[in-house]
Amino acid sequence: MLVANARRDEEPSAPARDLADRYRGIRAFTEELTRGLAVEDYVVQSMPDASPTKWHLAHTSWFFDTFVLAAADPGHRRPDPLYAYLFNSYYESVGPRHCRPRRGLLSRPTVEEVFEYRRQVDRHVLALLDRATAAEPPAWLPVVELGLHHEQQHQELILTDIKHLFQANPLRPVYASSPLTPAPLPSGERGLPGWISYPAGLREIGHDGPGFAFDNESPRHPEWVGAFRLASRPVTSGEWLAFMDDGGYAQARLWLSEGWRTVTTQGWEAPLYWERRDGEWWSMTLAGMRPVDAGEPVCHVSYYEADAYAQWAGARLPTEAEWELAAQECPVEGNFVESRAFHPRASADGAVDRPRQMFGDVWEWTRSAYLPYPGFRPLADALGEYNGKFMSNQMVLRGGSCATPRDHVRRTYRNYFPPDARWQFSGVRLAKDG
Amino acid sequence: MLVANARRDEEPSAPARDLADRYRGIRAFTEELTRGLAVEDYVVQSMPDASPTKWHLAHTSWFFDTFVLAAADPGHRRPDPLYAYLFNSYYESVGPRHCRPRRGLLSRPTVEEVFEYRRQVDRHVLALLDRATAAEPPAWLPVVELGLHHEQQHQELILTDIKHLFQANPLRPVYASSPLTPAPLPSGERGLPGWISYPAGLREIGHDGPGFAFDNESPRHPEWVGAFRLASRPVTSGEWLAFMDDGGYAQARLWLSEGWRTVTTQGWEAPLYWERRDGEWWSMTLAGMRPVDAGEPVCHVSYYEADAYAQWAGARLPTEAEWELAAQECPVEGNFVESRAFHPRASADGAVDRPRQMFGDVWEWTRSAYLPYPGFRPLADALGEYNGKFMSNQMVLRGGSCATPRDHVRRTYRNYFPPDARWQFSGVRLAKDG
Amino acid sequence: MLVANARRDEEPSAPARDLADRYRGIRAFTEELTRGLAVEDYVVQSMPDASPTKWHLAHTSWFFDTFVLAAADPGHRRPDPLYAYLFNSYYESVGPRHCRPRRGLLSRPTVEEVFEYRRQVDRHVLALLDRATAAEPPAWLPVVELGLHHEQQHQELILTDIKHLFQANPLRPVYASSPLTPAPLPSGERGLPGWISYPAGLREIGHDGPGFAFDNESPRHPEWVGAFRLASRPVTSGEWLAFMDDGGYAQARLWLSEGWRTVTTQGWEAPLYWERRDGEWWSMTLAGMRPVDAGEPVCHVSYYEADAYAQWAGARLPTEAEWELAAQECPVEGNFVESRAFHPRASADGAVDRPRQMFGDVWEWTRSAYLPYPGFRPLADALGEYNGKFMSNQMVLRGGSCATPRDHVRRTYRNYFPPDARWQFSGVRLAKDG
Amino acid sequence: MLVANARRDEEPSAPARDLADRYRGIRAFTEELTRGLAVEDYVVQSMPDASPTKWHLAHTSWFFDTFVLAAADPGHRRPDPLYAYLFNSYYESVGPRHCRPRRGLLSRPTVEEVFEYRRQVDRHVLALLDRATAAEPPAWLPVVELGLHHEQQHQELILTDIKHLFQANPLRPVYASSPLTPAPLPSGERGLPGWISYPAGLREIGHDGPGFAFDNESPRHPEWVGAFRLASRPVTSGEWLAFMDDGGYAQARLWLSEGWRTVTTQGWEAPLYWERRDGEWWSMTLAGMRPVDAGEPVCHVSYYEADAYAQWAGARLPTEAEWELAAQECPVEGNFVESRAFHPRASADGAVDRPRQMFGDVWEWTRSAYLPYPGFRPLADALGEYNGKFMSNQMVLRGGSCATPRDHVRRTYRNYFPPDARWQFSGVRLAKDG
Repeated sequence: MLVANARRDEEPSAPARDLADRYRGIRAFTEELTRGLAVEDYVVQSMPDASPTKWHLAHTSWFFDTFVLAAADPGHRRPDPLYAYLFNSYYESVGPRHCRPRRGLLSRPTVEEVFEYRRQVDRHVLALLDRATAAEPPAWLPVVELGLHHEQQHQELILTDIKHLFQANPLRPVYASSPLTPAPLPSGERGLPGWISYPAGLREIGHDGPGFAFDNESPRHPEWVGAFRLASRPVTSGEWLAFMDDGGYAQARLWLSEGWRTVTTQGWEAPLYWERRDGEWWSMTLAGMRPVDAGEPVCHVSYYEADAYAQWAGARLPTEAEWELAAQECPVEGNFVESRAFHPRASADGAVDRPRQMFGDVWEWTRSAYLPYPGFRPLADALGEYNGKFMSNQMVLRGGSCATPRDHVRRTYRNYFPPDARWQFSGVRLAKDG
Repeated sequence: MLVANARRDEEPSAPARDLADRYRGIRAFTEELTRGLAVEDYVVQSMPDASPTKWHLAHTSWFFDTFVLAAADPGHRRPDPLYAYLFNSYYESVGPRHCRPRRGLLSRPTVEEVFEYRRQVDRHVLALLDRATAAEPPAWLPVVELGLHHEQQHQELILTDIKHLFQANPLRPVYASSPLTPAPLPSGERGLPGWISYPAGLREIGHDGPGFAFDNESPRHPEWVGAFRLASRPVTSGEWLAFMDDGGYAQARLWLSEGWRTVTTQGWEAPLYWERRDGEWWSMTLAGMRPVDAGEPVCHVSYYEADAYAQWAGARLPTEAEWELAAQECPVEGNFVESRAFHPRASADGAVDRPRQMFGDVWEWTRSAYLPYPGFRPLADALGEYNGKFMSNQMVLRGGSCATPRDHVRRTYRNYFPPDARWQFSGVRLAKDG
Repeated sequence: MLVANARRDEEPSAPARDLADRYRGIRAFTEELTRGLAVEDYVVQSMPDASPTKWHLAHTSWFFDTFVLAAADPGHRRPDPLYAYLFNSYYESVGPRHCRPRRGLLSRPTVEEVFEYRRQVDRHVLALLDRATAAEPPAWLPVVELGLHHEQQHQELILTDIKHLFQANPLRPVYASSPLTPAPLPSGERGLPGWISYPAGLREIGHDGPGFAFDNESPRHPEWVGAFRLASRPVTSGEWLAFMDDGGYAQARLWLSEGWRTVTTQGWEAPLYWERRDGEWWSMTLAGMRPVDAGEPVCHVSYYEADAYAQWAGARLPTEAEWELAAQECPVEGNFVESRAFHPRASADGAVDRPRQMFGDVWEWTRSAYLPYPGFRPLADALGEYNGKFMSNQMVLRGGSCATPRDHVRRTYRNYFPPDARWQFSGVRLAKDG
Repeated sequence: MLVANARRDEEPSAPARDLADRYRGIRAFTEELTRGLAVEDYVVQSMPDASPTKWHLAHTSWFFDTFVLAAADPGHRRPDPLYAYLFNSYYESVGPRHCRPRRGLLSRPTVEEVFEYRRQVDRHVLALLDRATAAEPPAWLPVVELGLHHEQQHQELILTDIKHLFQANPLRPVYASSPLTPAPLPSGERGLPGWISYPAGLREIGHDGPGFAFDNESPRHPEWVGAFRLASRPVTSGEWLAFMDDGGYAQARLWLSEGWRTVTTQGWEAPLYWERRDGEWWSMTLAGMRPVDAGEPVCHVSYYEADAYAQWAGARLPTEAEWELAAQECPVEGNFVESRAFHPRASADGAVDRPRQMFGDVWEWTRSAYLPYPGFRPLADALGEYNGKFMSNQMVLRGGSCATPRDHVRRTYRNYFPPDARWQFSGVRLAKDG
């Protein structure tokens, strides 16, 4: 009773209440994404870059556990002290961790135990939020916000990693056979893309002002950008087939040196998940095997492939500054994970006064290396490891994909992957000098 | 009705009826061994040499499916045609197969589907056996017998592979916390082993006569064996600790060249599954972590370690002929899988007129390479791939272990593993020239 | 006679004559650099990134052979047609090539045969240059120029690769025991570096106008550069020792993620070529083993180390634009290969109005990824493979080293290596936001 | 003078004098074998299993240096103390050693310095032998004998390793273009081999009595050998072509499991050194590329290939006991290294009362694993590492090859290599049950 009274006096602050609502929604959506899986599907790791679904579920809870609960309450206990070790991804500052390529060896804790861990973390986080007062906003409040964006990143990884796992199984299981929205009809060949022109000038990019953003999106800063043109839409599978038919994967001159080495040693001859059946190209999707649809944005190509395609097409990839400038005039809307299509979709052709499909469908490779913005400052303490320490050997991608939550992405959002990565929903938009 | 009548006229033959009983018993025992596992435990492959429990369950069914059902009924169907591919272990003659190190990537078929596969195979095999008549014993009858021995081999592998998997998990799950028979008390140090002497002579080894044996145990043949002595019991963990304390793992001169290379590159300093905690040696067992019991036979050592130990002890390993000659005077009894101890046990000291613990507890490394006996003929067709094709780079082990079914092993039984293998229940018995 | 008359009428053009002089000088200097080697030293390849001296000598000749002689005279013959295959480095367009990591397997052609190949190429190139007329400057004339810059790059590689080879030999051979210029006395600790400030502004970088430059230095283009400060000199070995003493190689938080992985898997704990002897740090130099000199610029560190050091020092690495802007006020002079010191040297402390040692001594890592400048166009045909195709996973270095020919480097010169490379003479200059 | 007088009183013993003569002859022959090489050829290591010629020359001297000179004179000095480290092959007891796969990184000591090392060792060894008296035969006398047999083993390795090196070079250098004996004319197809029969019985094999033999050839011991037949000659290249034409390299059922894995992962489709040119099979020999001669013994095949061939031919490989029993009736004569043919040769067909070509031409794979004979005792001290420690994962070969010195091989001689080794002159003789 006393507690109840006490709480009546200190109503949870409005931001905390909003955060609690978003917490419930995002955590629930993570679990919704795993609902159709068999217990067995949660366990397996199909390659070192991917993680078992079970691990994603536990690690996102570990994040709140470690950076919110343990910070707010030093007496806080985990279901097993080893969870701190097993579900740490890469935070050197918070102690040693289970070796990444061995995540798939952990048959325990069971799926049910992991869900119980989530429920326990949820109870504690929501209780904390319930107690947070506007008068004294607790230090961990922004970390809850960060944790939710972190959770959304893993929502996308759950999908990309399950897709990779199912592709490794000759039975080719289906993740989602009846998406809530109907699959588009085969869209057929598209017309040529248009080109939107942008003048040269000293412009600003990067995040500033209110609203959440990751540390790597700041500070907002000036950049001189020469005149350029940007394609009105991403490259389609049909256009990619033309590249393939023209020997795109067999001409060394189109490729970066490392790219060509990768093509030849890995035997690449089409995007990941494509395979030839009786002379036709099919593709593994989260809804199972389907014929490649010529009108869709091409997907699951690496930076090397994107760059080689651009060479072949007499164009180039945009820089991330170019992309962001163009995006400033586009609404943040598109085919996101909420469509439950789990696959990029063709857009209608039409008049072209600004780029289409900048958001959703496919992450778009830029020719910008992932490096700190001028004046970049990482977060303090362990959370400083979140983004800054990956700033080598990676390229920036922009715009989100069909596996990204709609409210996760921003115009200034910088995603990054090594130039040979293909298991993300990554595609290509062309640019040219203006 | 006609069918029913027909069958009333042709009672199943007595051998087929016996076989049906054994079939039911052995297939049921396999499933009993998996009963305590979580669904997640069935899925994971902890190293290329080990297989997921799920795979063992399916593969042993695939064996009957392929070599009995498909042979007896050309119209026979599998639950999915791909099962022929997924669950073939190494039979080149029956078609391509899923790559061994990728068995752990198969989250599907689910555990439940695999059990359903077993039930389907069981129904068909038992129906076949029910129809087999003494008048015309079908050609596939001996293959059912072979399949049951094959199944028993996989019963042992299920245990050794689960142990390896659980060891890879920092949570150290327990497979069987309350074995049906009580675990022995710590047995303490043993006295010195005795030595039993055998005279030189021209002797015979190998299988002959009625009763099942694998092809590699034949033909029975003469062999000249010099005078030798055999230790009255296997080397104990206490004796192994003395070897370790004397720097056994650090003295190159004790080791075969390949063994020393393995010790140094793998960082071996104790048997597999041993680890030091606060100055004491503990060992992972299927009942969880326990202090090493000095009186137990040492276990999970490689041929290289067994040979180095023998060098250190001023002895040698027996040849398989020596072992078999000694075994001819020993009853085939001991600590087998039926004890549910799942771990070797100390035997009481006592008068020594013949070797103890020749059967059960631990497989005993011999110094004999696994090679064909003079006049060896493999089985015909695909089943000829069963044993003969592994006759390179392996050493023979004899006697069965605490994970071997009692009626599976024989005096002439030849088990074989590469000299660096440690995850089997493999131990050491010393010999000396007579 | 007719020919002689003809030539009297067409005097070699002045540019061709100058080029012939430079050709003679540069080709001779390459051979001078190899003079002290034993025949055996020319043959060995100590790692895939390095090449045998013999290969460098042949490959630089192959360059003229392929891109000048064969272009100028289709009937041109090599000593052996296989030379085209053996000495192609990475030009996919001119045909297949001997696998890079196997360059050290070629005991033939012998060193003498390779020198004979050089002499033959020299005769033909000089004869061509002699025939070149001002009236019709031949198309291959700029390629000779390019080939000389290419040859100078390999002069530096000959030194870095020999150093790596000699380090791999426990006998630690000496390349040059008595350099023409005396080795500096141990220079002792330096004072703190000064900091030179530069204002923000829209500036231009990149090559323009007359004079040779590689394609990757163009076009000259505007770039907005914020205010920054640059250290007056490179980081010294003494400062590096302080970093090491402070646990620099043991603190994950200082390192990029890939850097930390490299540190731990490679066991890095000091710059390449440093080793501890009786508690003191020594270093392998081209003049043999020497105690580390605290006053010298630190050398043979990777980008990962340079970045971690900057983190530790509360600074950062400069961008290549920052470096180039600062360099615009510095003379292109310093400790180059012509000093025959083959090692960086301490400079005197003194008043600091502009950066010292920007050129020579050590290549300075920048935080800029090696990417195309806006509007970059590679050379046409096979020579387009020269620079552009390496634009992934590499970082830019600036300023030349003690192994670089003085007239090879420029303010706009962009060198590039992967972030884990250490066998070049690579060092560190710090920067800070202004 | 005093010394001279002293020596006049103690004439060198006759055995020591004989040994000195043999020492001179064998050491000189080693150098003769390297005479045609370029300096560059001495340096390179073409694979971890092979060593540079320079290393062979130094290591064989290191053997005398370490086991004779250092033993006889504790004050003995090497040219450089590091030689003890650089040229130790695998003797753990005499200290650490340079890593085997890095032997090819040692450009120093130079070839000339290595020859000087040989001369120094020779002077000292011969001086020691000169001082050895019959009255007190020194303890190191048998070690000189052992060292000479060791030197002869390396004579063979020099040839096999140079052949491997030259094959790795697209220029395909020629080791010996004009052998002292003329190369045989193409010998054409042979008739079928005959079969010589041997009755069953208790027989003895192994070395006994006077004359040098390695420790692994002892003790002589009884063995029961069943009736068997042995082919009158080795398998020819023509017969091997028939095996290839019949798909021998493509039929899994013929192969041991490890063999098949090797065939598929290594892409074997013919013996080592064979290559197809314009539809014909050619082979690299020490006299350069030649068309395969159908009548010659096939060479450079692994145990896996030998075993698969035997399966295909409806035969098997002999055991080493069978081989040795048959050899007891054959003279130790044949095509050895002294013929300077450096390649196996066809023998004339003829009456078959005993096996031909048992010695020389090609080492013959047996189906016997290389294991200790009953009662085997290795040499004491470091020399005990000579043979015994390799007794795992190797198969026995018998009879010597065209690269073996005539007086090096014996009827009891046991050579051994891993079952996948192909760079030795290894061939096949078939056997059958009697």
